[in-house]
Amino acid sequence: MQVNGKDYRTVWMHQRSVFMIEQNLLPFEFKIFESKNYQQTCNAIRTMLVRGAGAIGAAAGFAMAQAFLEAPKDNFRNFVAQARKDIEATRPTARNLFYATERVYLSGKKSTELALTEAQAVADKDAADSQAIGTFGNRLIKNGFHIQTHCNAGWLAFVDFGTALSPIYKAHKAGKDIFVWVDETRPRGQGAKLTAWELQNENIQHRIVPDNAGAWLMSQQKVDMMIVGADRIAANGDTANKIGTFEKAIVAKTFDVPFYVAAPTSTFDLSTKTGNDIIIEERNQEEVLCQSGIDNAGILRKIRIASPSSEAINPAFDVTPAKYITGIITEKGVIKPDEETIRKLFL
Amino acid sequence: MQVNGKDYRTVWMHQRSVFMIEQNLLPFEFKIFESKNYQQTCNAIRTMLVRGAGAIGAAAGFAMAQAFLEAPKDNFRNFVAQARKDIEATRPTARNLFYATERVYLSGKKSTELALTEAQAVADKDAADSQAIGTFGNRLIKNGFHIQTHCNAGWLAFVDFGTALSPIYKAHKAGKDIFVWVDETRPRGQGAKLTAWELQNENIQHRIVPDNAGAWLMSQQKVDMMIVGADRIAANGDTANKIGTFEKAIVAKTFDVPFYVAAPTSTFDLSTKTGNDIIIEERNQEEVLCQSGIDNAGILRKIRIASPSSEAINPAFDVTPAKYITGIITEKGVIKPDEETIRKLFL
Repeated sequence: MQVNGKDYRTVWMHQRSVFMIEQNLLPFEFKIFESKNYQQTCNAIRTMLVRGAGAIGAAAGFAMAQAFLEAPKDNFRNFVAQARKDIEATRPTARNLFYATERVYLSGKKSTELALTEAQAVADKDAADSQAIGTFGNRLIKNGFHIQTHCNAGWLAFVDFGTALSPIYKAHKAGKDIFVWVDETRPRGQGAKLTAWELQNENIQHRIVPDNAGAWLMSQQKVDMMIVGADRIAANGDTANKIGTFEKAIVAKTFDVPFYVAAPTSTFDLSTKTGNDIIIEERNQEEVLCQSGIDNAGILRKIRIASPSSEAINPAFDVTPAKYITGIITEKGVIKPDEETIRKLFL
Repeated sequence: MQVNGKDYRTVWMHQRSVFMIEQNLLPFEFKIFESKNYQQTCNAIRTMLVRGAGAIGAAAGFAMAQAFLEAPKDNFRNFVAQARKDIEATRPTARNLFYATERVYLSGKKSTELALTEAQAVADKDAADSQAIGTFGNRLIKNGFHIQTHCNAGWLAFVDFGTALSPIYKAHKAGKDIFVWVDETRPRGQGAKLTAWELQNENIQHRIVPDNAGAWLMSQQKVDMMIVGADRIAANGDTANKIGTFEKAIVAKTFDVPFYVAAPTSTFDLSTKTGNDIIIEERNQEEVLCQSGIDNAGILRKIRIASPSSEAINPAFDVTPAKYITGIITEKGVIKPDEETIRKLFL
C-alpha cells in the first residue's frame, strides 16, 4: 500500500537486514526500523514493533533466514536450532509464526540460499493471499454497507493489503460507497491507532468506536456486517483473535449481524482440534494500566490511566467458537466454519 | 466512607457553598472543590467534576437550593425557573437529576429554608438508600464469590456507600472472602480510575479488566455474578447505564452469569415506558480520542491516543432490556424487572 505516495510493504528483507515499519510509533510517526540480526528481529516481534498475524509470520521467516546467514560453521546446527526456538518463543498464539519458521527452517537445512528464497516466498504468498481475500470478501459487500472491524487486520498486520481490511479496500476501489466502524481495541488500541490510520490514508469514511459501544451500535441497526482477522483457526473453525472478538461475535449473533473472519489458509492449524487447545498469551498488565500517545506539543508520552495501586489482567486473545462465525474469507474462497469444509481446503 | 482516616461524603452543602470531591482528579489527587453559586455547580455536573447518578442528583438538589439563596427579590420567580432549566440541561440521561431538582424546586416555592432542608433530605435519603441496597445485595453474595462490575457505581457515584459496590462493601465487612473484577470502562475509565481506587481504599481484592476481556473472563467461569448501577430505569425495567453495560448483559446471559442492577427507587422513571424512550447523551469525541493520566513524574497529562485525523463516536450510555436483568437491588428489596413488580414499589 502507499504512504506519502510511495509503495511500502510492512516487512521486507534486503541483504542481511530485515526492515519493518515501526508500528509502535504509528499513527504519530512513520519510520522504518532496520534489524541487523535474528535476535533483533525476535525482539521486534516480542515488543510488537511488528505485529499482526501475517506480518509476524513474514518477520519470523526472515528472522529464521537471518539465523542461517549468521550461523557459525563450527556450530551451525545448534545455532539454527536455538534460533528457531528463540523465534517461536516470541509470541505463542500466532499460527503464522510457527508456519513460516518451520518452512524456512526446513529449506535452510538444504542450503542457506534456499532459506532466503523460502522466507521471501512466505512473504510474497502472504501478500498474494491477502489480495485474493480482498477479491472474495468484496463480493459480500453491498453498496452503502456499514462494516465494523475489530483490532487491525489491515495491511500493517500482513505483508500487504491485509485480511479484514482487504475486502474493504477492494470495495472502495470498485467505487462502492462504504463506511467503516473501527473498534478502538483496548488495551493497545490497534483500531484507533492503526486501522484508523490505514483508512485515513486510503480516504475511506470511518469513525472510531469505543469497544463498549458495540452492542449499542448494532442495536441501532447501524452495522451491516462485521469482518475481523484471525491469529489461529482450529480444525473445527474456532478462531483465536484479538481480545474482544468473542464478545463482538456474541453481540453480532444477538442482532443478526453477519460476522466474518478473514484469514489465509496459513492461519488454519489442523493439529489444533478445537479452540480449547489454543494457548492464550497473557501480556504485561502495563498495557492496560498505561497508555501511549502524543501531547499537545506532539511529544510521544506514556501515562498511567488507572488507580496507582491497582493491578490488571491482560489476556491478548480470546477464542470465538465456530458457531458464532458466519463464514471465513480465505484466499481460496469464502467457506463455512466447520471441520469437513476446512479439511477440504487442504486436500 | 473514609479517605486517609477521615469520613467524607461525595457532595455536601455548607452555608451557600456546595462542596464536592473533585472526581476529575481522582485517582491521582484527592481534592475538594467549593462551588460558590448554582452556575458553578451546574458546570461541575456538566464537566463531570461530580458524576454518578446519586451524586449528580444530590449536587443538582443543592444547586437548586443555591439558586433560591441567590435569587434577587425583584426577579425571584424567573431566576429560579431559569436556574431549574440550567440545572436540568447539564446531563440529559440521569433520572436522579430531574427528581432532585423538582423536589427542591417545589419546596423552595414555599420558602427558601424549605428548599435547603429538602436538598439536604435528598442527599441524606440517597446515603440511606445506598446503605439499604448494600444490606439486600449482600444476601446475594456467597463466600468466595468473584463479582464483576462496570463503570463506577460506588460511593463516589452517590452521596455515600454507592449502589453496585454497596453490597460488596457489606459483604467484605461481614467477613466474606470476595474478589472484584473491575471493568476498565472506556472511554472515561471510571472503573480503572474510580472503582479501583475505592476498592483499594477498602482493601478489597480486585483486578482491572479491559472491557474487551468480558466474554473471555465469563467463558472461563471466572465470574459468579455481575452487579452494575443505573442512570434511569423505565417502567418496564429497561435500564440505562454506562455505555458497555448492554454488551456485558448480553455476554452474561450467554454464560448464565446472574446480572444484577443496583439502584434506589429514585432512579425509576415510571413516565418512561420503555428503554426506547430514554434519550442517550452523546458526549464530546475528545473523551475517546484522548486520555488523561499521570506521567512518570506524577504530572497529570492529556494525550491523544488515536490516529490524528480520525473522528470517533461517544454515546455515554446504552439501554439494557429488562430480559437481560436477573434482578434489581433497591432500598426496598430485590425485585424482578417487570412492570407489575416495579409499579408495586410505588404504591
